[in-house]
Amino acid sequence: MAVPKLQFACDHADLPSALADAGKVGDVVDILEAGTILLLQEGRKAIQCLRAMFPDKIIVADPKCADAGAVVAANCGSAGADFMTVICAASLPTMKAAAKEVKEVQVELFGDWTFEQAETWLDAGITQAIYHQSRDALAAGGGWGEKDLEKVRRLADMGFGVSVTGGLKPETLRLFEGVDVYAFIAGRAISAEPDPRRAASDFQEEIHRIWG
Amino acid sequence: MAVPKLQFACDHADLPSALADAGKVGDVVDILEAGTILLLQEGRKAIQCLRAMFPDKIIVADPKCADAGAVVAANCGSAGADFMTVICAASLPTMKAAAKEVKEVQVELFGDWTFEQAETWLDAGITQAIYHQSRDALAAGGGWGEKDLEKVRRLADMGFGVSVTGGLKPETLRLFEGVDVYAFIAGRAISAEPDPRRAASDFQEEIHRIWG
Repeated sequence: MAVPKLQFACDHADLPSALADAGKVGDVVDILEAGTILLLQEGRKAIQCLRAMFPDKIIVADPKCADAGAVVAANCGSAGADFMTVICAASLPTMKAAAKEVKEVQVELFGDWTFEQAETWLDAGITQAIYHQSRDALAAGGGWGEKDLEKVRRLADMGFGVSVTGGLKPETLRLFEGVDVYAFIAGRAISAEPDPRRAASDFQEEIHRIWG
Repeated sequence: MAVPKLQFACDHADLPSALADAGKVGDVVDILEAGTILLLQEGRKAIQCLRAMFPDKIIVADPKCADAGAVVAANCGSAGADFMTVICAASLPTMKAAAKEVKEVQVELFGDWTFEQAETWLDAGITQAIYHQSRDALAAGGGWGEKDLEKVRRLADMGFGVSVTGGLKPETLRLFEGVDVYAFIAGRAISAEPDPRRAASDFQEEIHRIWG
């Protein structure tokens, strides 16, 4: 079982504040993400800046692509993204088209999806999945439980690299002990802390304590 | 049954080409849309420019929001959007949060959804639905059929304002005769024509011939 990576999601409302935080934590984390909110606010410049600032890191674009997979993925790839997300409700032709244009496509799991569908995503060339506790669902009182962990395990057993996100903190990572997680994704749990660089290091220390 | 509106989707790769086409057809159409591809490339500027250029038209932002509904909708609304799209796979809390921040939310129907779910969207404050032939599915050989029309009718009967999109041309509008369509959405069927303004007028003439 590989040591999970740490992904910093830049989901800021504007590029200056996103890049300020990215600059603080970029060399501590393994993956930098141009989040959905940031992409919708600032466009492809967000990906281009992260790529230019961190040439040796993995850069993820998170448009949650639902259609026009070839165009959206080609645009994200040419801006510098290594990985791109698609929404699980996207059609298989969308997923297949996207998979040809970036190094890896990550299917983001929202709403009602089934493991039967997940098999078809693998056939479409999708290599990764993001198991997501919705921000809004968390705000409505949800949280991580054994039911979630069981799904993460099953997706990993199927062959997906599984990243997890939503309400994670260093002290909640132990919930995932023994689970083959590709990356833990944190945004405000890093950027909203008084010392974002310290917060990112706390995540990394806990990851290496458990999986190292 | 009201006369369906005509919506021009700007799904260009950059703002200059989008605004050039919007300028050509803006006073012919009823609704202008900052499409997903354009938003991801250029960010909120795309909405702001359409709002400024067409203060009296309905402006739609099409982020296909899947999460963080309050933030994404507030950002779209403050940029000038009247309507915003959410993906049907979004959670109900996401939809409810979005519905508070823009005048109307349109749920975009992709993948597997059910009419039972659609009832819950109405309860969440969603007033409109977009019945979508996926661009990638169309490229793979799909098309409009009676099965699609039946779903559009049923959604309209439930109370949704239903817009339709995907591979539409003036000559295909007659398929929808007798169906209560809120808006026909066309992008490249207008912008890729030699005379986009003429193409938009052809759509409007056919709409008014059938529903006028």
